[in-house]
Amino acid sequence: MKLGQATIKDIAKELNVSLSTVSRALKNYPGISEETKRRVKETAERLNYRPNAVALSLRQSKSFTIGVIIPEVVHFFFSTVISGIEEVAYANGYNVILCQTNEKYEREKSILDTMLANQVDGLLVSFSKETKDFDHFTKLIELELPIVFFDRIPAIDSSVHVTVNDFQGAYDAVTHLLQQGYKKIAHISGPENLTITKQRKEGYLKAIRDFDEAISYTKILECPSGNEDESFKLVNALFTNGEEKPDAIFAHHDLAAAGALMALKSLGIKIPEEVGLVGYSNWQFSSMIDPPLSTVSQPGASIGETATKLLLDMINKNGNTGTISKSVMLDTELIIRKSSSK
Amino acid sequence: MKLGQATIKDIAKELNVSLSTVSRALKNYPGISEETKRRVKETAERLNYRPNAVALSLRQSKSFTIGVIIPEVVHFFFSTVISGIEEVAYANGYNVILCQTNEKYEREKSILDTMLANQVDGLLVSFSKETKDFDHFTKLIELELPIVFFDRIPAIDSSVHVTVNDFQGAYDAVTHLLQQGYKKIAHISGPENLTITKQRKEGYLKAIRDFDEAISYTKILECPSGNEDESFKLVNALFTNGEEKPDAIFAHHDLAAAGALMALKSLGIKIPEEVGLVGYSNWQFSSMIDPPLSTVSQPGASIGETATKLLLDMINKNGNTGTISKSVMLDTELIIRKSSSK
Repeated sequence: MKLGQATIKDIAKELNVSLSTVSRALKNYPGISEETKRRVKETAERLNYRPNAVALSLRQSKSFTIGVIIPEVVHFFFSTVISGIEEVAYANGYNVILCQTNEKYEREKSILDTMLANQVDGLLVSFSKETKDFDHFTKLIELELPIVFFDRIPAIDSSVHVTVNDFQGAYDAVTHLLQQGYKKIAHISGPENLTITKQRKEGYLKAIRDFDEAISYTKILECPSGNEDESFKLVNALFTNGEEKPDAIFAHHDLAAAGALMALKSLGIKIPEEVGLVGYSNWQFSSMIDPPLSTVSQPGASIGETATKLLLDMINKNGNTGTISKSVMLDTELIIRKSSSK
Repeated sequence: MKLGQATIKDIAKELNVSLSTVSRALKNYPGISEETKRRVKETAERLNYRPNAVALSLRQSKSFTIGVIIPEVVHFFFSTVISGIEEVAYANGYNVILCQTNEKYEREKSILDTMLANQVDGLLVSFSKETKDFDHFTKLIELELPIVFFDRIPAIDSSVHVTVNDFQGAYDAVTHLLQQGYKKIAHISGPENLTITKQRKEGYLKAIRDFDEAISYTKILECPSGNEDESFKLVNALFTNGEEKPDAIFAHHDLAAAGALMALKSLGIKIPEEVGLVGYSNWQFSSMIDPPLSTVSQPGASIGETATKLLLDMINKNGNTGTISKSVMLDTELIIRKSSSK
């Protein structure tokens, strides 16, 4: 791959504008006119400006820094993964820098440039809900930058990743509800483009098919934002619109389950007597709400530790990933609390 | 200040060890013998190796990156501050990298080196609970690296910082409990070395002194870790040890309040009828627990936005901070829910 030579300084000089203007124009930020953006981008193309490639070509020595790209630090699951990452990284003399995408594709691409400019030795990535094109990652993998994906698996053939068995986690949760005597289980699902969404949905459907031929009720409530407000509205509508009502709900994660719980309570429906409820991810609040929420616990710290060990192996073998196993799948654990215990 | 010239490469060459060994020895990581650590440190000193100063001297152009150092991303308050920081930073063409100290002083110093090696244009800092010596920050301020502190104020004369009025926040919370008719209010306090701990404690004591001369009960439960387990044990002990019992609790933050809530419920004590409860920080779970928790809300996003605007001013004036106001204090808001409403 032929690397470009131009820097943003060259572009600024060429156009007689400030470095800040070039930087912002390239990132499509507001406050820069469309005309300036167009001129900056044209010049960048003409001068063969390639931020990623240039940054990589400038890597001279190890920085002992690992970059972590995550959707949101506020998500409890990700904060447990980060703890696992830091545990292994610090024990091996590496520092960790984090960037969050806020689930935005454009920000993810911009962050990737920052990480490379900062000369990270490798990346741990859980990409955004919006990301459907993985070119920004494949380019770097081709340039032999070590990358390990976790939780969310990209559509890239050669990716190294660490996930949990979400199909089985969902299967276990729904089987538990069926064993408790619930017969009509609805599922609040997550963002459409994520593999975890599909797997939890499939685990839900398979558990119902496997349990008892007489049970055929299924109902999927699409809840792409996954927040408690959206889930509250969906569940409130389902229980007031005259449709056949479920007697249990399995939610894509605990925030969505919390929204369902508040909707059911506001309608005077008793949990777990009238409707059972199971969430996913074991958020910090899940044991504190009333009734305490049954949930599927993902081994967040183990995911972080495993992904970091894989990454350090890749870094220390200088891209010779031939002997490194390409994916690791960890098990979930069903935590049964009052919300699903009849 | 005279800058050192040596790099870790020079040290490694001198001692005939790997770069990784030098890096780990300098950071005091496990897995390196005491003898090696001693030799590396002696050599580093002899060669005048100074990571911070060297990194700063190498800064050639703006990186359009802001570094954020926080204790823990899992703390809901910090995640709201980060949102505010990113809002302003991205709108101005800056990327944001985060590092968490896990409340550890040694890690904070190591992170500072990473941030500088990454050539951040400025830093936003909330230091760790362990940090009592601020030399690592003052050195950088002397070298004119823009730094804005938030939430936690360092013992540095010239620091620029953004805080909330914690004295008033605590004062308002306790006055509310007194107005609801509670007469014996205990306080679960936070980590000793933090200014916010002192201010919340003073606000608590002042509110009781101001309200009614007939009310004199005060009781402070020291809860340095601030987690719900420690708070659970403290409250459980207080209500079972035969001492005079409080009829309300004001906690340093919502996690400690949640521990108190669980202890009271396990003892069969009714909230708010028998004991009122107010927390601090308005964690995500606080509206979902039973009963919903009254709390003092800090304007996390505003803190982040304000601190970032101050920092960008400092960056763009190239260290000429003379005209920049040195501290900003924002107001809190009392959120009254069922846990304190008789």
